[in-house]
Amino acid sequence: MTNPLSGTERTRHRRLREQGRTDRDDLVAVLAAGLVAHLGVVRDGWPMVVPTSYGFDDTTLYLHGSVASVSLRAESPVCVTITLADGLVLARSVFEHAVNYRSAMIYGYPRIVADRGELLHGLRSLSEHMAPGQWDYVRRPSRKELAATRLLALPLAEASVKIRTGPPDDGDSPDAGLGLWAGELPLATTWQQPVPDPALPPGIAVPPHIAARAGTPAS
Amino acid sequence: MTNPLSGTERTRHRRLREQGRTDRDDLVAVLAAGLVAHLGVVRDGWPMVVPTSYGFDDTTLYLHGSVASVSLRAESPVCVTITLADGLVLARSVFEHAVNYRSAMIYGYPRIVADRGELLHGLRSLSEHMAPGQWDYVRRPSRKELAATRLLALPLAEASVKIRTGPPDDGDSPDAGLGLWAGELPLATTWQQPVPDPALPPGIAVPPHIAARAGTPAS
Repeated sequence: MTNPLSGTERTRHRRLREQGRTDRDDLVAVLAAGLVAHLGVVRDGWPMVVPTSYGFDDTTLYLHGSVASVSLRAESPVCVTITLADGLVLARSVFEHAVNYRSAMIYGYPRIVADRGELLHGLRSLSEHMAPGQWDYVRRPSRKELAATRLLALPLAEASVKIRTGPPDDGDSPDAGLGLWAGELPLATTWQQPVPDPALPPGIAVPPHIAARAGTPAS
Repeated sequence: MTNPLSGTERTRHRRLREQGRTDRDDLVAVLAAGLVAHLGVVRDGWPMVVPTSYGFDDTTLYLHGSVASVSLRAESPVCVTITLADGLVLARSVFEHAVNYRSAMIYGYPRIVADRGELLHGLRSLSEHMAPGQWDYVRRPSRKELAATRLLALPLAEASVKIRTGPPDDGDSPDAGLGLWAGELPLATTWQQPVPDPALPPGIAVPPHIAARAGTPAS
């Protein structure tokens, strides 16, 4: 609780209170572990939920806005949710089944990044989050590419984090007497061996920052 | 194209046309591979995106509505998005980087399931989707548990599927002459070995339908 997130009515943990976290470190941990965010916007009274890649720094979430920005007018509110499914919680009854997960939800009014310096900063945070080392390895964006890039900036201010871990909750219930197996079935997401582009000429080695990632956990 | 999805203005693939799919089999494949859906609703003019488990049959998506149903009034429109991240697309330039993914987006007006028969049917589809075999192994819902269960039913009618696979798009661009490595870094999500509930008495074996899942792909 060294650095609490701001609390509002909708981010207060009404249900599942035991799973709510209010520390900024928990938010950063979920953001660091996730790969794809789900960006929610309202268009013509309908919700629209779009998967998108993201990066972040201490104060700001940066989102690739290509698809969603079509729907975003100035001062459009958004909700961005990042979820990691860590496994199934297998209980003695259907009712007590659950999912172990980590999830962050961020509300706010995003800006479309216009400043060239912030655009480069935001794109770099996104690139380094997705594929650490690539920013310094590949060709950086040209002026023309920057002009064609839509990046959204959302303050990491109003946020909510929920985490469920551990076994099912019915270990001390009457159902424990049923003689059934119960526990967790964990999920692991792992980077695989890199697959070269078929268009690649022979003799170009996989760079160390990519090779080192194969076999490591992705979340 | 044997069984096309219904097309509307917002599900038409305006951008990234090459990635749009319009066959119902593609929708079913994404639903079958996913584990967690992101349910978008509108509350007080704001979007709200909630992760939730789901099941489905030929015509209907069933969603655990516990959190979101707080916000759902009758005839509230929703957007449900299910996304699987399959890997990174590592190009020769920052600008051409991408994510290989499969995603389904479903729009509609959900019903809160009231009929006891449909509630059991929907819960079973959810249970069998998440943990095949558990429905027949564990204790089924009691009358009291059914009364406490909020399940949403959403028609699988207005839907959009997008899939990206394969190498980066810059293999025949001037950047191909930079001498940089390019390709894909795939992600794999795999079920791990089951972890027994510490409250489990000794001598209860992991049932075959759970044991058989360890080591298999989850998506």
